Amino acid sequence: MEITANNPQRKSWLHVEQGCDFPIQNIPFGVFITKDDIITIGTRIGEYAIDLGAFHQLGYFNGIPLTDDIFMQDSLNDFIADGRKTWRLVRNRIADVFDIENKTLQNNTKHKEVIIFDVNEVEMLLPIQVGDFTDFFSSKEHATNVAKIFKLQEEPLNNNWSHMPLGFHSRASSVVVSGTPIRRPLGQTQQLGQDKPVFGPAKCIDMELETAFVTTDVNQFGKPIHINEAKENIFGMVLLNDWSARDIQKQESKPLGPFLSKSFATTISAWIVTMDALEPFKCEGPEQENVVKYLKHKKNKNSYDIKLKTFVETPNGDINALSESNFKNLYWTMTQQLTHHTINGCNVRAGDLIGSGTISGSTKNSYGSMLELTWNEEEPITLKDGSTRTYFKNGDHVIIRGYCENSQGRIGFGKCTGKILPAVKYNLPE
Amino acid sequence: MEITANNPQRKSWLHVEQGCDFPIQNIPFGVFITKDDIITIGTRIGEYAIDLGAFHQLGYFNGIPLTDDIFMQDSLNDFIADGRKTWRLVRNRIADVFDIENKTLQNNTKHKEVIIFDVNEVEMLLPIQVGDFTDFFSSKEHATNVAKIFKLQEEPLNNNWSHMPLGFHSRASSVVVSGTPIRRPLGQTQQLGQDKPVFGPAKCIDMELETAFVTTDVNQFGKPIHINEAKENIFGMVLLNDWSARDIQKQESKPLGPFLSKSFATTISAWIVTMDALEPFKCEGPEQENVVKYLKHKKNKNSYDIKLKTFVETPNGDINALSESNFKNLYWTMTQQLTHHTINGCNVRAGDLIGSGTISGSTKNSYGSMLELTWNEEEPITLKDGSTRTYFKNGDHVIIRGYCENSQGRIGFGKCTGKILPAVKYNLPE
Repeated sequence: MEITANNPQRKSWLHVEQGCDFPIQNIPFGVFITKDDIITIGTRIGEYAIDLGAFHQLGYFNGIPLTDDIFMQDSLNDFIADGRKTWRLVRNRIADVFDIENKTLQNNTKHKEVIIFDVNEVEMLLPIQVGDFTDFFSSKEHATNVAKIFKLQEEPLNNNWSHMPLGFHSRASSVVVSGTPIRRPLGQTQQLGQDKPVFGPAKCIDMELETAFVTTDVNQFGKPIHINEAKENIFGMVLLNDWSARDIQKQESKPLGPFLSKSFATTISAWIVTMDALEPFKCEGPEQENVVKYLKHKKNKNSYDIKLKTFVETPNGDINALSESNFKNLYWTMTQQLTHHTINGCNVRAGDLIGSGTISGSTKNSYGSMLELTWNEEEPITLKDGSTRTYFKNGDHVIIRGYCENSQGRIGFGKCTGKILPAVKYNLPE
Repeated sequence: MEITANNPQRKSWLHVEQGCDFPIQNIPFGVFITKDDIITIGTRIGEYAIDLGAFHQLGYFNGIPLTDDIFMQDSLNDFIADGRKTWRLVRNRIADVFDIENKTLQNNTKHKEVIIFDVNEVEMLLPIQVGDFTDFFSSKEHATNVAKIFKLQEEPLNNNWSHMPLGFHSRASSVVVSGTPIRRPLGQTQQLGQDKPVFGPAKCIDMELETAFVTTDVNQFGKPIHINEAKENIFGMVLLNDWSARDIQKQESKPLGPFLSKSFATTISAWIVTMDALEPFKCEGPEQENVVKYLKHKKNKNSYDIKLKTFVETPNGDINALSESNFKNLYWTMTQQLTHHTINGCNVRAGDLIGSGTISGSTKNSYGSMLELTWNEEEPITLKDGSTRTYFKNGDHVIIRGYCENSQGRIGFGKCTGKILPAVKYNLPE
């Protein structure tokens, strides 16, 4: 089935500013709550949030096999479980109805009133109920930087890194939607010259610039998905900030890996941009060598050209650019990550979230974490207001942006943001 | 409120064999499907499965504030979210109705027909929809053995182990109910004398003898639970086998910890035994030294005397005892694990599963994994049929049993079992 929604010539009767992340060619999916306290699944064009629950109820999806309440839900999980054919039909239909040539909804003021909202007047919610959240570690530059900084071994990369996409299970409950404030976590850290660990607020709050993909029901328990079939199971992508407390991480990670240093919060952007919308921005990823056979895919534009930028907004309102990276820097592809994830029979379900790992590039201004940007606090960053940062301070508003752009247009993710709040007060037991 | 359900003098009008894990004092909770394809929440007395959906519909919970469909569900999550007071009211009422002195249901043949089933005629399902599955590493003996076997460091334990309950996020999707067959996973392993990893079925399939606890909604995102309040949030316990592929684990674990070596399957026992039922078996755990203050609880029988046994049944039907351990060997308590888990603000929800880690004792026959029992294949175990095991073979049926026993009776968990099936055939891409 053709992805007619992607037609670059198409214009919408809804106004879209030049350079907006959400032209009619995007049609992402999210969940929001209206001023009237109605929770619905929706999409976005320009600065308009579109209530797909109402849109469906009023018959605009007629002819597409959908259950009546598929969009009147607080998560996209069931819609995602419907599979690629349905996603494509739905996206094509939305594009058609909002096409400037189509007068049906355009001329129906009553319908428009219950379907279309100012995006600033709705509150975005977490778009999926995250079943499991896995985070990979697939940027060679990031893995190399981390190994160098912590002098983890003689060789810059562990022997295993080049043979498989390394990953770990992370915490699903604390995945939050963009805009949710982030409490500085309490925890145990080691202080210089102290024998015993110290308990208190973490000092080294870092971001991790990532993307993530969301899957449909991929495979049954015990049955791996084949690399030739994995890609079809990916619904879409979001931006992801895998907040990390580096001082807690250092203390707790041996031998089981990061735990509380990551699980205090993970932020994702509110709109899931479909793989269909990203199709025009496919590109080759880095050259891969000696790939173990089950992870070999045809050389067929397995990566995506997605520009990624990080900023910190200080309490005075200054926005300071921190770094610029690109998804195409990632060594292991999403298809390989998903294939590897199921190769042992582990079942991946609709609504699962799979992170890329920090996406760093090869130049210093392309690093995706403060750990790398300040080289473990050795080179603090000076901000516009004259203050310096090694890690983030309370009140810092950390912003990730991501978008694809070519001569025919732009498809973006909007923002993935979180402001750091002071640690809670904790009364120690007597 | 008194836990009248625990009255050791009470007898049921349902027959219970001497030594059965499920006397009327137990009243665990599970989910099953009847011969007529009805899924319901239930409890068990002796060899009888009791349909609590029907029990509630017929008015036997009258006077207890419960929603109509609370037991007509395919998971216990909503009931668990109702909290401790409700759990206790429900358990007390069940004990009362099945008390030999109570004739109401006992004399109502019609009601008995729709409420009471032979436990062998129902199929047990996973009792909870696992939100997140965390696995701790809280047995000092196990951690010490692992460190010795792999010569991980000079000291037998990492410096961090004694200061906090180390744990890691594990996979929720592949938690299965006792009896589910377990496929030998495919994966990458390192073979002696080979430069590159080899792909194929894992060779070193191990068990991990664990228990786990299930929580209610513990805390909000960003707000730690206090150690004095943590315990009230634990609903009950199950047996858990954290299946592990040691050869995959060795290859993938640096630096992020175990991933696919664990996520192919985790088995839990079908009946959740409530903390209320375990109350008579509270005991002191190991002496703790230098506990960081937020993890300090009053010395007040913070552990439980739960006998744990492992067996392997070979295809010829022989049952071979492998080891005997006890929950009370565990160094860190469940209250400490839960407090530590939330100290960073990570939210723990109703239906979350939190594993103990392998529970080994100090003597060789008390080790909870084949890794330890055979000291990393150095000392194979000879079975009744004359065959030997280092790790498990296809066709092996691994069984964990657990129960508490004192002069007044026995409260048990039943079995946690899984039979190992050969790896799937996987067609490598061209």
